[in-house]
Amino acid sequence: MTKLDLAIRGGTIVTASDMFKADIGIAGEKIAVIAETVAGAEREIDASSLYVMPGGIDSHVHIAQPSGPGIVMADDFASATASAAAGGNTLVMPFALQQRGASLRGSVEEYRTLAEGECHIDTAFHLIVSDPTPAVLGQELPALVEAGYTSFKVFMTYDDLVLNDRQLLEVFDVARATQALVMVHCEGYDTIKFLAERLERAGKTEPYYHAVSRPEIVEREAAHRAISHAELIDVPMMIVHVSGRETMEQVRWAQQRGLKVYAETCPQYITLTAESLKGLNMTGAKYVCSPPPRDCDSQKAIWEGIAQGVFQTFSSDHCPFRYDSTDGKLNPKARTSFRWVPNGIPGVETRLPILFSEGVSKGRITPQKFVELSATNHAKMYGLYPRKGSIGIGFDADLALWNPNRKETIRQEILHHGADYTPWEGFEVTGWPVMTVSRGTIVVEDGKIVAGKDHGRVLEREKSAYAA
Amino acid sequence: MTKLDLAIRGGTIVTASDMFKADIGIAGEKIAVIAETVAGAEREIDASSLYVMPGGIDSHVHIAQPSGPGIVMADDFASATASAAAGGNTLVMPFALQQRGASLRGSVEEYRTLAEGECHIDTAFHLIVSDPTPAVLGQELPALVEAGYTSFKVFMTYDDLVLNDRQLLEVFDVARATQALVMVHCEGYDTIKFLAERLERAGKTEPYYHAVSRPEIVEREAAHRAISHAELIDVPMMIVHVSGRETMEQVRWAQQRGLKVYAETCPQYITLTAESLKGLNMTGAKYVCSPPPRDCDSQKAIWEGIAQGVFQTFSSDHCPFRYDSTDGKLNPKARTSFRWVPNGIPGVETRLPILFSEGVSKGRITPQKFVELSATNHAKMYGLYPRKGSIGIGFDADLALWNPNRKETIRQEILHHGADYTPWEGFEVTGWPVMTVSRGTIVVEDGKIVAGKDHGRVLEREKSAYAA
Amino acid sequence: MTKLDLAIRGGTIVTASDMFKADIGIAGEKIAVIAETVAGAEREIDASSLYVMPGGIDSHVHIAQPSGPGIVMADDFASATASAAAGGNTLVMPFALQQRGASLRGSVEEYRTLAEGECHIDTAFHLIVSDPTPAVLGQELPALVEAGYTSFKVFMTYDDLVLNDRQLLEVFDVARATQALVMVHCEGYDTIKFLAERLERAGKTEPYYHAVSRPEIVEREAAHRAISHAELIDVPMMIVHVSGRETMEQVRWAQQRGLKVYAETCPQYITLTAESLKGLNMTGAKYVCSPPPRDCDSQKAIWEGIAQGVFQTFSSDHCPFRYDSTDGKLNPKARTSFRWVPNGIPGVETRLPILFSEGVSKGRITPQKFVELSATNHAKMYGLYPRKGSIGIGFDADLALWNPNRKETIRQEILHHGADYTPWEGFEVTGWPVMTVSRGTIVVEDGKIVAGKDHGRVLEREKSAYAA
Amino acid sequence: MTKLDLAIRGGTIVTASDMFKADIGIAGEKIAVIAETVAGAEREIDASSLYVMPGGIDSHVHIAQPSGPGIVMADDFASATASAAAGGNTLVMPFALQQRGASLRGSVEEYRTLAEGECHIDTAFHLIVSDPTPAVLGQELPALVEAGYTSFKVFMTYDDLVLNDRQLLEVFDVARATQALVMVHCEGYDTIKFLAERLERAGKTEPYYHAVSRPEIVEREAAHRAISHAELIDVPMMIVHVSGRETMEQVRWAQQRGLKVYAETCPQYITLTAESLKGLNMTGAKYVCSPPPRDCDSQKAIWEGIAQGVFQTFSSDHCPFRYDSTDGKLNPKARTSFRWVPNGIPGVETRLPILFSEGVSKGRITPQKFVELSATNHAKMYGLYPRKGSIGIGFDADLALWNPNRKETIRQEILHHGADYTPWEGFEVTGWPVMTVSRGTIVVEDGKIVAGKDHGRVLEREKSAYAA
Repeated sequence: MTKLDLAIRGGTIVTASDMFKADIGIAGEKIAVIAETVAGAEREIDASSLYVMPGGIDSHVHIAQPSGPGIVMADDFASATASAAAGGNTLVMPFALQQRGASLRGSVEEYRTLAEGECHIDTAFHLIVSDPTPAVLGQELPALVEAGYTSFKVFMTYDDLVLNDRQLLEVFDVARATQALVMVHCEGYDTIKFLAERLERAGKTEPYYHAVSRPEIVEREAAHRAISHAELIDVPMMIVHVSGRETMEQVRWAQQRGLKVYAETCPQYITLTAESLKGLNMTGAKYVCSPPPRDCDSQKAIWEGIAQGVFQTFSSDHCPFRYDSTDGKLNPKARTSFRWVPNGIPGVETRLPILFSEGVSKGRITPQKFVELSATNHAKMYGLYPRKGSIGIGFDADLALWNPNRKETIRQEILHHGADYTPWEGFEVTGWPVMTVSRGTIVVEDGKIVAGKDHGRVLEREKSAYAA
Repeated sequence: MTKLDLAIRGGTIVTASDMFKADIGIAGEKIAVIAETVAGAEREIDASSLYVMPGGIDSHVHIAQPSGPGIVMADDFASATASAAAGGNTLVMPFALQQRGASLRGSVEEYRTLAEGECHIDTAFHLIVSDPTPAVLGQELPALVEAGYTSFKVFMTYDDLVLNDRQLLEVFDVARATQALVMVHCEGYDTIKFLAERLERAGKTEPYYHAVSRPEIVEREAAHRAISHAELIDVPMMIVHVSGRETMEQVRWAQQRGLKVYAETCPQYITLTAESLKGLNMTGAKYVCSPPPRDCDSQKAIWEGIAQGVFQTFSSDHCPFRYDSTDGKLNPKARTSFRWVPNGIPGVETRLPILFSEGVSKGRITPQKFVELSATNHAKMYGLYPRKGSIGIGFDADLALWNPNRKETIRQEILHHGADYTPWEGFEVTGWPVMTVSRGTIVVEDGKIVAGKDHGRVLEREKSAYAA
Repeated sequence: MTKLDLAIRGGTIVTASDMFKADIGIAGEKIAVIAETVAGAEREIDASSLYVMPGGIDSHVHIAQPSGPGIVMADDFASATASAAAGGNTLVMPFALQQRGASLRGSVEEYRTLAEGECHIDTAFHLIVSDPTPAVLGQELPALVEAGYTSFKVFMTYDDLVLNDRQLLEVFDVARATQALVMVHCEGYDTIKFLAERLERAGKTEPYYHAVSRPEIVEREAAHRAISHAELIDVPMMIVHVSGRETMEQVRWAQQRGLKVYAETCPQYITLTAESLKGLNMTGAKYVCSPPPRDCDSQKAIWEGIAQGVFQTFSSDHCPFRYDSTDGKLNPKARTSFRWVPNGIPGVETRLPILFSEGVSKGRITPQKFVELSATNHAKMYGLYPRKGSIGIGFDADLALWNPNRKETIRQEILHHGADYTPWEGFEVTGWPVMTVSRGTIVVEDGKIVAGKDHGRVLEREKSAYAA
Repeated sequence: MTKLDLAIRGGTIVTASDMFKADIGIAGEKIAVIAETVAGAEREIDASSLYVMPGGIDSHVHIAQPSGPGIVMADDFASATASAAAGGNTLVMPFALQQRGASLRGSVEEYRTLAEGECHIDTAFHLIVSDPTPAVLGQELPALVEAGYTSFKVFMTYDDLVLNDRQLLEVFDVARATQALVMVHCEGYDTIKFLAERLERAGKTEPYYHAVSRPEIVEREAAHRAISHAELIDVPMMIVHVSGRETMEQVRWAQQRGLKVYAETCPQYITLTAESLKGLNMTGAKYVCSPPPRDCDSQKAIWEGIAQGVFQTFSSDHCPFRYDSTDGKLNPKARTSFRWVPNGIPGVETRLPILFSEGVSKGRITPQKFVELSATNHAKMYGLYPRKGSIGIGFDADLALWNPNRKETIRQEILHHGADYTPWEGFEVTGWPVMTVSRGTIVVEDGKIVAGKDHGRVLEREKSAYAA
């Protein structure tokens, strides 16, 4: 029998399908045995009364991206991966963003350089295509897909990122040819611009008007447009960060037509509303993200979509900025209008406790569904399965141990991210990750980061199981 | 009692609601009396066994528009209005097209100049806004609406006409402010361009590929986009020439949400299919129009939409080009690719016989519904009611006398338009207009134009009853 | 020219399609002329500033029906038709109810006997089939349809009336064979019974629990069942008194599938809610009808259905009982439980003012739509067109003159029905019928009945235009 | 370490979520270890190149039920469980049918007596409630649920089984109170009766008219009715053997409203059509089951429902009759009319190969989805999880070893059921179960039954995970 380095004993193993009590034996970086009793390991962890779950995979995080003149994100790879690990994750998927005029390959290399040796847990990059030149479409992108960057994101909004419909179609066409999975940020550029300018002219510049300038119709329209393009090209597509009823129903409509349209949602859309952006003294800026959170009916719609299988993944869209600093959310320009408030909120560390508490503890979803939404489907969607995403023989020993009954109050002071606030300050949860194991190494032990930032690897990926 | 100039006697009067036998007495240009017996008129017409219907209103025709370098339309105002009158119409609504860079007011004046004194029946112009500059949006357009041009059309495709989403929103906003009715040609510019170029690269250049380059998805997506814009701006909107199931269902979806989205369809979408474009020796070019005709299921869907009240108007989208001439459909360039075949088919003269025959004679709609779709709703939709569009006291004496049992075969040789062919050559119909009366003057008598081209007037209009 | 007996001068004529100012000349019982000026009539009515509309047709009223042991309706034919006339109606359609075990023909004769010589305005009977024996289905019913009773109603609830599914199918089959129009009261018998008994066992016996015992689901389910039967038999069908969103959406779903399913709604479903049944001291009993009024969202849904053409007719379902009398709503047994409160409310006189005020005056519908919903479609639906239902040459001179600006407060003291209360006591309306003309005879003049109860006739009818 | 009795080595383990290569070690009746290498077991099975799946659970089979005067089913518990085991199953769920007038408890005991000691694999009974007397509803049923019969089925058709709506509501109410799962056979009794008699009167008595007498509308209507009842009572419900598009869409509609409506489908609905019933010389009788198979579009709809998560379970509805025998499908009375052909087809042995081949091998579903539909969800739905339904530590060692590449032609001669034919004679499949292991005992080895009929146990069950 294989020599075991680590044993997790007595826990309740949870996969996307099953729950049962068993010991897990880990040899090196892999799960080697699951059994009633696993004895003789170098080290043993007592997991009695804990859930032993696949480590969370957060397939939508932004790290160290430039975000406008002078604006830097609050997290580098070290802090982001520490934060993720503390939140029960064993893998995050940030974006390698192509700046217009830049080579896609070059962009990827830069991000890899930033990441290598700086990650507490594993990472794997999606690409962001902002400049689909013939060279990018014809050579770079196919080559990068072959090299293991098997998903790329495109934007239907933002001055520096927006693709027009022609470009979207061309990128979708490359996705089809290369069997890469294309991810789409669906919000209509022109409409937001039109509305934002009108609001500014009317002197409505507080952070709340960020939400007013990006109503659900704008997201729904863009989703319908992206779905139409995907239908025409006959290519699968992932609509990221769906925020409410209107867009959920577009996705469901598409799925019912038999289209391979997938969808992701995020914690902000089941816990926050646009009212959050009304915080006094500019504190509403702490909730500025895109799409903005909506209302209670939209939260209900998101849960309906989860129950009905409309959503495959639940991610954070972690996109952290400091609130109290010259180049963060409240830089001088941001004070003049919501248009200059950086879009994004931190969330990689709080995603799983929020889903666990609002979902599992409140009886809306089973622990298995939690695993599916938080880990397994991410791995399958993005070509990391069966290396990652579940608990089985031969899988990487990426595990999160959860105390399903532990009550915590989310507070900035207990988090590990680089941001100086959390949108969920004071939010009470039941269920908390008490240990994170990455490839057999304990990375977090009750909130303390115990593995170095050289532990994480930057991974290449297979083709998505959903992109065929 | 008023002195009567003309009496139509013994016919079955049909309105959008009613059918009953009665005489009609006309004094000057107006209907003065409807009675069991109208005696003592200067002239009497025996309408026994005929339907006496409101003269058709064709709210979607193109006359004398420039259509690309060197391309001229096959109809001027004289031939178009003669053709319309022969087809049972008493009013047509052509477009005054603003060329980019030109003033909208100037464009209108040019078209009026072409039309004045050259029309056998009345006309009233819609505007086409292709260059929504601040001056156009801020001054010209509001002033023209006030001056009686209470509807304008915008395009989501065509190189020289397409507006981007920002421009659409701005035009919609003016429509809301002025209570004008905005008409939208829904097809996605970028997607068509993408598909057309791909087809050309593949050597697929025959006329049939025109239809392939503009699939229903492209029309549906644009319709959804336009609906979203209208919902956001909170303005009524008319989607013109809906061609099939997908777009019909978008409109129905919008209407069910309570949105004021109206829709028009045309003869080509209940009688032709994309197969028509496969005609040998380039004769498929005779059927090139946009959106292209679809398939049998879409024809069925159009009838469903008519039955369920999704469509308010049935127009021709008359847009005539000569087939056998250097600057018509088969000019040398058009022979090289479908992309250069002028988009449009003649139809102002055949619209009503086709709807009557396929609708009334085949039992799909009542005669009253025919009147509603072909006349009354056009008048109400475009601010001509209660001057036009029905048979009642004080209405203009605009009448069409129909023999509901007369069988005819549509043939180019019996038509009056400037085109040298009809897409319905050989099409058999039951029901035929045998006399057209415009403001009390007999304009057509059994196929012969008997009123001069100075009879028609160019009308200003009130605000649409649907635009509030 | 025909000699005219009556002229209505200077009014605004409204049909289901049109509005225009004109005089109307009446010869005998018929409309003989509509003209700018109608001079020389025996009598002239000044209708300046009034709407001249087709007299209302109320195709759903209950008169003099037995309603349980000892219970008699509050209206006989004299009071019901006086009340109807005062409310702007010129025709009502009561039911000839077959009691179980009785012959259908015999039942009809009994009702005719009650009605003949006792009606201020015209009446025409629907049949109610409660005992579809082979003799009824095979002989009586077909013979009665041929004799002009071209519509019949069936019930899916009520102990003495309910048909089981087998019987419904058999009746539908006769409707198909005879081209009669079948009307269905859709509420599920078993479910109501189950719920009512459960409520009684729990001591919940106040009138409000009537509404609780008949939730929307029960009506929706029955509607779906009836639709399925009609689809199977391939026969048109009218679902009467649709009360809210759920059933409206079932009808719309059926219509979108192309089924000939028609629907009616009533004033109670746009103005009352189940809350009305909570009135103190048993006054909630005044609002007990079936289906019960629902809630505000359902009222909204009814307006949506009207706007989208889901509903063809708007009737009263007049079914009057006295409140303060031993055998009316508050008889001793009724005080013991909602189950013994007679189901039905008076409304034949208030139907049109409510629809006019809530619809036309509040801008929800046009005057033309009012005419369509209140008169024209009833006539077409039930085989009375073109004798009744519009204003045209040769039509019966059945007219209602409306002052569109007159404000009134509905009060029992101004009504003419036999009930001792109105559910709309204190309800304020804008728009009021000031004169009713039936076949050329003035029946009501500003609230006063001026024609005898021998004026009205009992009419036979043609086949429905919708039943083909 | 636990002593292992059996090891399955080198196979690819498949659960509803995962696939990975590993050895399985079994101690006694339970799975004790899953590991890279499991050595030292008493017996080893080489599963290289095989899928090791949870043994199939068929939650819908009929065994030894009386089926009309003189008609006996073709399978007793011995043959049925042998057949099931040969088809890759380790558990079947037959019904204990209450005959009208009989006690439910007594019925259960009779069936248990028939089953005990006669089963090659485990069984667990659902109840069938055909006579919901107060005693049954008030005492017997709650007591039996507590005793482990946690699901019961009711019928909306069949003379001897049909419940009326009142009874359905009462049974649903008991399901709610006891947290039992109610299963509903949805077909409308009255309508079928009406249609069948009409067909018979028209001389249309061949087996094909069985399908004509039970069209999809009849199933859809009953499904809508059952859904409405469940919505009203607020109780979860399982609609069994959904046959096509109409009913699938009703279920989906219910699920989208947030109702806990679950659904099952069967092999006949993805492989057969009503055309099958047209077989010459009465061979169409071989395909007589209820609901009958539909058409190709319905097959497509079933796959759509599977893809969209509408269906939770895929069962056989095994209901076997001999074809060539006096009291089977072709008894003398059955020859006179389709009405006397026993309803039901054999299928417990072919269910899984058909789903595997049509689903997995043809690329429509993943192997994981196969496991979910064929085993895991059955266990969860019917209170057998986590004892049954997956592969995990502590689960019963119920396994099926599949050769995913083995091609077979289904033929009566290779099957083990008591019927004398299979509806899938000649049907070619790819993928075949080569070994079945029940609680650690090899029951079938390459088509040969190697365990005695005393191996299987009759199980009690927990409450359904879906019935809360």
